[in-house]
Amino acid sequence: MSNKNRQFVLVSRPEGMVREGDFDLKDSAVPEPGPGEFLLRTVYLSVDPYMRGMMSDRKSYAEPVAIGAVMTGQVVGVVEKSNHDRFKEGEIVVAATGWQEYSVCDGTDCRKVNPDYGPISTSLHVLGMPGLTAYFGLLRICQPEAGQTVVVSGAAGAVGSTVGQIAKIMDCRAVGIAGSKEKTDWITGDLGFAAAVNYRDESSIYRSLKQHCPDGVHAYFDNVGGPITDAVFPLLAVGGRVAVCGQISQYNMDEAPTGPRLLWHLIVKRATLQGFLIFDFAKHYREGLIQLSEWVSSGRVKYRESIADGFEKAPGALVGLFQGDNIGKQLVKVSDL
Amino acid sequence: MSNKNRQFVLVSRPEGMVREGDFDLKDSAVPEPGPGEFLLRTVYLSVDPYMRGMMSDRKSYAEPVAIGAVMTGQVVGVVEKSNHDRFKEGEIVVAATGWQEYSVCDGTDCRKVNPDYGPISTSLHVLGMPGLTAYFGLLRICQPEAGQTVVVSGAAGAVGSTVGQIAKIMDCRAVGIAGSKEKTDWITGDLGFAAAVNYRDESSIYRSLKQHCPDGVHAYFDNVGGPITDAVFPLLAVGGRVAVCGQISQYNMDEAPTGPRLLWHLIVKRATLQGFLIFDFAKHYREGLIQLSEWVSSGRVKYRESIADGFEKAPGALVGLFQGDNIGKQLVKVSDL
Repeated sequence: MSNKNRQFVLVSRPEGMVREGDFDLKDSAVPEPGPGEFLLRTVYLSVDPYMRGMMSDRKSYAEPVAIGAVMTGQVVGVVEKSNHDRFKEGEIVVAATGWQEYSVCDGTDCRKVNPDYGPISTSLHVLGMPGLTAYFGLLRICQPEAGQTVVVSGAAGAVGSTVGQIAKIMDCRAVGIAGSKEKTDWITGDLGFAAAVNYRDESSIYRSLKQHCPDGVHAYFDNVGGPITDAVFPLLAVGGRVAVCGQISQYNMDEAPTGPRLLWHLIVKRATLQGFLIFDFAKHYREGLIQLSEWVSSGRVKYRESIADGFEKAPGALVGLFQGDNIGKQLVKVSDL
Repeated sequence: MSNKNRQFVLVSRPEGMVREGDFDLKDSAVPEPGPGEFLLRTVYLSVDPYMRGMMSDRKSYAEPVAIGAVMTGQVVGVVEKSNHDRFKEGEIVVAATGWQEYSVCDGTDCRKVNPDYGPISTSLHVLGMPGLTAYFGLLRICQPEAGQTVVVSGAAGAVGSTVGQIAKIMDCRAVGIAGSKEKTDWITGDLGFAAAVNYRDESSIYRSLKQHCPDGVHAYFDNVGGPITDAVFPLLAVGGRVAVCGQISQYNMDEAPTGPRLLWHLIVKRATLQGFLIFDFAKHYREGLIQLSEWVSSGRVKYRESIADGFEKAPGALVGLFQGDNIGKQLVKVSDL
């Protein structure tokens, strides 16, 4: 075990696109756990779209990261030392300890991971927040019925790829929107999406989607927003349901972006749009994790990881996320299990 | 009884703002009712925002009015002659017979009106479609709870003025947005709205609304869309609900209008937006009409009418509706009861 703890602290609030230079790599001493605490060594860091919001001081659902503070985020790691009666040395734990190699936890918002259920990295995606986001967003908000068409944007990401596969399990047709041929090949080939649209390759996302959704879009799980969502709205079926999960296309824009006004489509289609945060489903997490674990073990839900190797890669991995570099879940590997 | 039937037919599809010249006044003979039919003499014509959509050939929930056809719309009138076993001479009937002085009906989509319940004109507003739209849109879609703040746009119109009064009956604070001092005075003075914003008189609708909604906007009933709705979105409370009823600010725009992208507010606020058409509540109309009648008779729901006198005034009344000339329900008086 090293006696140095590397941390990434936020040094500037990005204007527009997040930059690697918004973070500074800082050395500090590995902290000592006090009574009722344990020391966690980070194995994987999670890199997620919501992090852009935490870097800005725009009012949102959570406090922004302070300038000079360690960047927030979920990690999975190993308990190295423990004075805690529930978290023991050698156990695997998911915690929101942020971008650092070591951290001291008192158990708050920590979750033990059983490594028998699969690689521990999955606790940061398909068996963690992104998986739960897909599960509750699709089933509780989109509420798709058998035979219906479910469109998902950001379809090759950690959330979107899971949404499409759950839709398929629900006997729906999943149609994904993603940004490269490699991504659309993966979701239609390996994941069983009925169709996919590569938005970077289409002169009209609308026309291409329309072809793939002859009965309209009964449910839309939106991770992206912007022009992609503009293309989906006119195709909503009567009674269509939209889960507004993310708007990744908008997060790096400082000026309020403009686009066509689309609310009248909601009237004509009697459609419902609902924004959600996964925290609102906290008391149902266990239900979701049990079901997702079963689907993952039986191979009905597959996943893919894009792993940046080395703690120092974290800022670059975040930048890459907004450029669409990742396929599946973007992780940063910090140490060996 | 005249033997001439004046009709307004649609002669051109408006580009942008509807013009009186889009209609042509045409004389024809008063039709004769056949077996199972009756002749209705129009007393009042209804003039409604949705009519703009029927004049355009843009795809929507209903077929557009054909060029050369009588303009569609609801009327209330008197049965002059009848070969129908349910609708008798002298009875008052609401029907969608369009802009003409006389029409023959077979009873489809016709509703008898009991004149003991109040002036028959109310069957075209507070005790008709606009009243039902307010009733179901507010209670079923906005679902406001006691003590919450309900904002309504188009607040001095037939629908909006009823929404605010029902909100008050539900022990909510009603805050209205309207376009003149006379309108805001009416809704806060006579109708009991807690506050009102005159959007033509404000440098920032947002700031003014924020003052009147210190706890945020729990429910928003939108008749208007555009910049007014842009001002409401950032003020939505967590779990806020929006009923998208109309977008009158947009109906006369041929180019798809643009505005700020607002969907991320839905995520942060976990808000729900739902578009609706009153027809979807058809099987519950009776419930709504009974309740509205009680509230109108007891004086808990008040109304106001702007009446254009004379059949030939119909096109001008429609143009005026989009200029915000009316307070309360815009009607055209065609003949004496």
